[in-house]
Amino acid sequence: MPIITHLEARDTRFPTSRHLDGSDAMNAAPDYSATYVILSTDAGDSLAGHGLTFTIGRGNEVCVAAVEALASRIVGQELDTITANMGRFWRDLTSGDSQLRWLGPEKGVIHLAAAAIINAVWDLWAKREGKPVWKLLADMSPEELVNCLDFRFVTDVLTPEEAIALLRRHADTRDEREREMREVGYPGYTTSAGWLGYSEEKMRQLARDALAEGWEHFKQKVGGDLEEDRRRARILREEIGWQRSLMIDANQVWDVDEAIANVRNMAEFAPLWIEEPTSPDDILGHAEIRRRVAPVGVATGEHCHNRVMFKQLFQAGAIDYCQLDAARLGGLNEVLLVVLMAAKFGVPICPHGGGVGLCEYTQHISLFDYICVSASLEGRLLEYVDHLHEHFVDPVRIHRGRYQVPEAPGYSITMHADSLEAHQYPHGDAWR
Amino acid sequence: MPIITHLEARDTRFPTSRHLDGSDAMNAAPDYSATYVILSTDAGDSLAGHGLTFTIGRGNEVCVAAVEALASRIVGQELDTITANMGRFWRDLTSGDSQLRWLGPEKGVIHLAAAAIINAVWDLWAKREGKPVWKLLADMSPEELVNCLDFRFVTDVLTPEEAIALLRRHADTRDEREREMREVGYPGYTTSAGWLGYSEEKMRQLARDALAEGWEHFKQKVGGDLEEDRRRARILREEIGWQRSLMIDANQVWDVDEAIANVRNMAEFAPLWIEEPTSPDDILGHAEIRRRVAPVGVATGEHCHNRVMFKQLFQAGAIDYCQLDAARLGGLNEVLLVVLMAAKFGVPICPHGGGVGLCEYTQHISLFDYICVSASLEGRLLEYVDHLHEHFVDPVRIHRGRYQVPEAPGYSITMHADSLEAHQYPHGDAWR
Repeated sequence: MPIITHLEARDTRFPTSRHLDGSDAMNAAPDYSATYVILSTDAGDSLAGHGLTFTIGRGNEVCVAAVEALASRIVGQELDTITANMGRFWRDLTSGDSQLRWLGPEKGVIHLAAAAIINAVWDLWAKREGKPVWKLLADMSPEELVNCLDFRFVTDVLTPEEAIALLRRHADTRDEREREMREVGYPGYTTSAGWLGYSEEKMRQLARDALAEGWEHFKQKVGGDLEEDRRRARILREEIGWQRSLMIDANQVWDVDEAIANVRNMAEFAPLWIEEPTSPDDILGHAEIRRRVAPVGVATGEHCHNRVMFKQLFQAGAIDYCQLDAARLGGLNEVLLVVLMAAKFGVPICPHGGGVGLCEYTQHISLFDYICVSASLEGRLLEYVDHLHEHFVDPVRIHRGRYQVPEAPGYSITMHADSLEAHQYPHGDAWR
Repeated sequence: MPIITHLEARDTRFPTSRHLDGSDAMNAAPDYSATYVILSTDAGDSLAGHGLTFTIGRGNEVCVAAVEALASRIVGQELDTITANMGRFWRDLTSGDSQLRWLGPEKGVIHLAAAAIINAVWDLWAKREGKPVWKLLADMSPEELVNCLDFRFVTDVLTPEEAIALLRRHADTRDEREREMREVGYPGYTTSAGWLGYSEEKMRQLARDALAEGWEHFKQKVGGDLEEDRRRARILREEIGWQRSLMIDANQVWDVDEAIANVRNMAEFAPLWIEEPTSPDDILGHAEIRRRVAPVGVATGEHCHNRVMFKQLFQAGAIDYCQLDAARLGGLNEVLLVVLMAAKFGVPICPHGGGVGLCEYTQHISLFDYICVSASLEGRLLEYVDHLHEHFVDPVRIHRGRYQVPEAPGYSITMHADSLEAHQYPHGDAWR
């Protein structure tokens, strides 16, 4: 019965803005960063729980401060007591200290910080069980899994009983899907050629490289100059043809009416979806956009801050694709609730990838969705961005545009110790 | 042309949890606190801009860290350049640094921090003009006022042109209302008798005291034990009678269906409104509750984090009363936008008071609403809680249940220097 004896919170930043990788219409120059948490125990073995929340640079120190404010709610607790009732632990960490809850509630910095800690608990739990997180979940009974969830504020659309029924629906064919995933992997899509700030030549070369690697689905950033967006879409369609998917992503720069006009203007390029057309908080705005830009689908979620917001996106019929974020939501517990609600409403999950560590996280989520909940790959694509994977002990593996199933115990989020050292802000070698 | 030369961020906390003042169903033991900002200039006079954001204790240091992260966006700027285009400044502070924007966007800690800074700018501006903030606003032309606002993400319901028209609607009778307010003050309501944790004897005594002071509107905290809530409502109705208003406040503890059942169960006490029946993020949930508990009204807003959320509360017909918060929204600029949207939808403004400094802020907002926008007091009540006013240089003044108009220059939020010293966390005298 190991006790969590220490929580270390690190400010880890990568100077990505120096190369313009990851630039979009809202986020011109991100330095991909992590508020990185390590949970140690008294077990006398080498197992530690690692978790991170993703930011894009400045302000990462504010998330570190929030993690430190939450630390006393977990340090000193027995891991087994936590995992025996993960739903209760989740409620306690996110709402148990009403003074800290006030800073959200359940949104922004304090929720990002909670996510890093909660995901570190899942990582530790899975490592001790000797399983990757997706497999830890897949081996749970529906009742055990539901015991990990806090249904507060969503019982009007999903009760624990309904969640159990959803988990039972395809239970007898779980093994087949697990085998299938191990054989063929989970389908992904790439943004490599589509960032703003790349020249035409670089776009074409990256698109050809991606095609050669077997990618079938491509995303382009939009939301700068409209003619420039059209020109870049034309280049991508010329390279990838019309049988493959092209998605467009505006990163929240438009107002509602503007989004409708601009997406219609891009419709001739047949985008599968428009991503983040407007404010991530605008549920009714997304619903209106969706009604008026069909057949282009609407996707959002990377900035959707909790299950209550996703509940409403589903209720309002606002989205065709649910792009939940593994670290903006309050860790895996809340992610699982959103996956279950999405299944009830028939909305496919296409988690937000990129940054640092998000692809490592999300492969577990999409595998769980397919194996245990939806039993479908229709409309489901896992975002892939080829950034910073070399810093992880067990990085994602891609083959022919598909994620290969992670087999190492944990949540795949453990970074190399020397990467953490070199990118410690502001005194690591990368920042000197 | 003074330049802002320094931003000081203080961690100011009051140990209110020792006396159970301010306890409710969600917030059992708050230590009312402020992330307190002082802007200094090179003008060579004694005028400094003061602003605060309100928290309830632990985590206030996280807001201080966020203020410090934002400081470089204002220090070194000319005040006149800022005030000449407050809308642009607001956009720059809340979204100009995309790395910091990621922490919200426009919500939680980073938005609370922005509010403290932005309100300090308004305080400084008004002090330099020699006017209280409400009067600074009332003396602006509609065009000048609209120039202070950022309409991003709300143009689908309110354009700058519509805002100007709303401000012109009652412009010719502004002076009458200004005179009226100076004569009779703005109507308030009190929560003094209604906190959880008070004995029956204390409740009755506080209610009688409040009646003797001239209060006509009373709020009670609910959301603990239902029978206990009913018992306390009965006590209050016995004391205040049935001609005066009784409001009830659940502080977010219920799920949607639970809220509907519990409010119906309280309906015999004829509450004017149910406040925060469920998650503050649940726009559609509030709309459903409102439909099903009428004629009890629905009120929310103290945790509503930005104009996009309020826009949707209005669009969805989710609330009867708009309880915006002067420091959870991104300072006065965003507050003014919400006031204008509320006017368009015909929803009265009843700002969130209490804590530390909120009543000092909100009197300016309600005066602006009445004098310049709505020209109506119908359904409008300004929350009053008798806590911590003694720490302010120019505290609110109440007479016969009405706020008296503040006349000192600024936003009324400047605290006494010795109060700030004594309550500096963790080394001030109050925390030794």
